[in-house]
Amino acid sequence: MKNNTIVFDLLNNDNKEIEAIKAAYEFASKNSNYSLIIVGNQKTIEDNLPSKLNNIEIINSTNIVKKPSENIREILAHESSMLSAFDILKERNADAILSSGDSASFISMAALKVKRLENISRPAFMPVMPSLYLDSKILLLDAGANVEIKSNYLEEWAILADAFYKSIFKHEPRIGILNIGTEDYKGPLALREANESLKKNKNINYLGFIEPEDIIVGNADVVVSDGYAGNLFLKTLEETVINIGKVFKNIIMSKTKNKIAGLLLKKDLTKFKEKFDYRNVGGAYLIGLEKIIVKAHGRSDAQAFLGALNQIKFALENNLMENLRNDLEQKNKKEE
Amino acid sequence: MKNNTIVFDLLNNDNKEIEAIKAAYEFASKNSNYSLIIVGNQKTIEDNLPSKLNNIEIINSTNIVKKPSENIREILAHESSMLSAFDILKERNADAILSSGDSASFISMAALKVKRLENISRPAFMPVMPSLYLDSKILLLDAGANVEIKSNYLEEWAILADAFYKSIFKHEPRIGILNIGTEDYKGPLALREANESLKKNKNINYLGFIEPEDIIVGNADVVVSDGYAGNLFLKTLEETVINIGKVFKNIIMSKTKNKIAGLLLKKDLTKFKEKFDYRNVGGAYLIGLEKIIVKAHGRSDAQAFLGALNQIKFALENNLMENLRNDLEQKNKKEE
Repeated sequence: MKNNTIVFDLLNNDNKEIEAIKAAYEFASKNSNYSLIIVGNQKTIEDNLPSKLNNIEIINSTNIVKKPSENIREILAHESSMLSAFDILKERNADAILSSGDSASFISMAALKVKRLENISRPAFMPVMPSLYLDSKILLLDAGANVEIKSNYLEEWAILADAFYKSIFKHEPRIGILNIGTEDYKGPLALREANESLKKNKNINYLGFIEPEDIIVGNADVVVSDGYAGNLFLKTLEETVINIGKVFKNIIMSKTKNKIAGLLLKKDLTKFKEKFDYRNVGGAYLIGLEKIIVKAHGRSDAQAFLGALNQIKFALENNLMENLRNDLEQKNKKEE
Repeated sequence: MKNNTIVFDLLNNDNKEIEAIKAAYEFASKNSNYSLIIVGNQKTIEDNLPSKLNNIEIINSTNIVKKPSENIREILAHESSMLSAFDILKERNADAILSSGDSASFISMAALKVKRLENISRPAFMPVMPSLYLDSKILLLDAGANVEIKSNYLEEWAILADAFYKSIFKHEPRIGILNIGTEDYKGPLALREANESLKKNKNINYLGFIEPEDIIVGNADVVVSDGYAGNLFLKTLEETVINIGKVFKNIIMSKTKNKIAGLLLKKDLTKFKEKFDYRNVGGAYLIGLEKIIVKAHGRSDAQAFLGALNQIKFALENNLMENLRNDLEQKNKKEE
C-alpha cells in the first residue's frame, strides 16, 4: 500500500495544540502506512506526545496566524504554523493538509500555495452537512471562499462536486443551485446563466434552482451557490439549530414536570444532537485544488481532529484526487 | 376621529376568499371608523357575508393573478383582483392595502401604482419577525423585492426602518447590515460602501455588519440586507424552525415513553410554537411607498387576516406614514 503523508497544523485552534497532539498520536499509532508531519511548538509537542513514533515528524513553528485580514500580502508576510504547513505540503509534495485555524487565511494560503485542478477557475469552500431527515450527507459549495462569482465558477463546482460525491458516497448526487425561488428567471444574473448551462449538461443529475426548504427536507445532495449566499445559508441553519436547542433546554429546565419529560426524551434527543455535533460532521474541504485540503472546526477537540484525519484517510483510500481528475477530464471531453 | 380606508384583495389566497370574508366582516363590525373596500367575486362575498355593513364596499373582480412571471407588462395586462385593488387604492386615495397573493406580483404592482417616499430609491419587502429569546420584534429589509442593489438603497432602508421602528415599537432600534462576517472589509462592495456611510450617521444606532447568529440571539432589532441575502436568511430560518419542529414531533410520536414526555411539555411547547406561527406574526410590509402596503401569508386564514387588518389599524392609529415622512425630512435636513 502506498505511504500517504498528511501535513497537520496544530496551532490556530481554540484549545491550543494539546487536543491536536492527542489526535495525531492516536491516528499515527493506528495507521502505520500514513506519515504525519505535525507543525507547532516543538517543545509542547515533545512534552505531550506519549511516545516517539516513526511516522510522526515534528516541524517547529510557534506563531499562530495573525487575526483575519483582507490583505493577502500581510497574511503571507508573517510566519505562522499554518503558512509553514502549506509550504511543507508543497515542498514535500504531501497528499493532504489539515488545520483548524482561521478560514479566510486558510483559503488564501491554499489558493496561493496549491495548484488548481484543470478547468477549475476558483477553489470552493465545501462543508459536508448532515441531512435533517435522511442518513445521507449534503455538500454545500461555495460556503464563503468566493463572495463575487462568475457563472462558470458555479458550473465548474457542480461538475466537481458531482465527481467528489460519487467518489466518496458511491452514488450520483442530485445537484441544485441555491436561489430565492425555483423559477428560471429569479435571482442574480450569474445564477441564471449557470442554471441555463447546467440544464443542458447530460452528465449530471441537475435539478435546477432550489430553495432553502429543498435542502432542509432532503431534496438535494449537492448545493451550489456563491460564497455569499452559501455562507449565510450555512450559518443561519447552524445557528437556528443550536439556538432552538438552547430554547428547548431552557424549557426542559424551567420546571420539575419538564425535567421529567427531558429525562424520558434524553436518549432520542442525544441521538439527534450528535448528528449535528460538528465533531461528528467532519471538516470542510477546500475543493478545486491538487491536494486534499481540510479545515477542521476552530473549537475542535481530539475527537473532532481524529474524525478529520480519518476523513482524509477515507478520501485517500478512495483515490479522491485521481477520481476527480479523471472525471473532470472525461466530462470536459464530452462537452467538447 | 379620521375615517380610514383599507383596500382588501380577497382572492389569490390558498383558502379562496371565505376566510378573508370572515376577517373583513369581523373587522368592519368592530371598527365603525374604518371603511373596507373588499375586492373579489361579488356573488361569493354576498353569499358569505353574515349581513350588510355600511363600512364594507364590494368591488367585483373574479380573476386571481397569473402565476408569477418576470414580465411586469404581462402581470399588468391581465385583470386580477390584486390589480383592481391597487387601482382602487390609487383612485380613491385610500390609506392601506392588504393582499395574500403572490409576493412578486404584489411588489411589482405596488412599485408601479404607488408613489415612492421622498429620497427613497426602491421599496423594500419587510417582514416583522419574532425574536427567539426576546419579546421584541425584528424588522428585516429587504426580504426579496430587490435582488440587485446599490449601497444607497441599504442606507435609505436603514433610515426608513429606524423611523418605522420608533413609530410602531416606541423605542430606538439597533440596526445592522447582514453580512458573512463582522469585519468591515468582508462581503460585497455595496454592503461595504453602505457600512462606511452608516457608521458616520449619528442619527441612528448603527451596529455595523452583523451575522445570522447576531439576529437569532437577539443582538439587533433591524436587519438591513439586499433582497437576495435577506430572502435566503428568512427562508432558511423559517424552514429550519418548521422542520426541527417536525423532527421533534416524530421523536415524540415514536414511542409511548416519548408520548408521555410530549404531554408533559405540551403547554410550554405550544407557547413557543405560537410565537412563530405566521398567524400571530402578522403580514410583511412593503415599505418606502406613500401608503401602508401589507402582504399577508399565502396560507392565511381568518385569524391571520384579522391580525393583518389590526396591524394596519395600529399603524394608522400611530400615524405611521406621517411619522415616516417627518423623520425622513428631518434626517435629510441634518445630513445636508
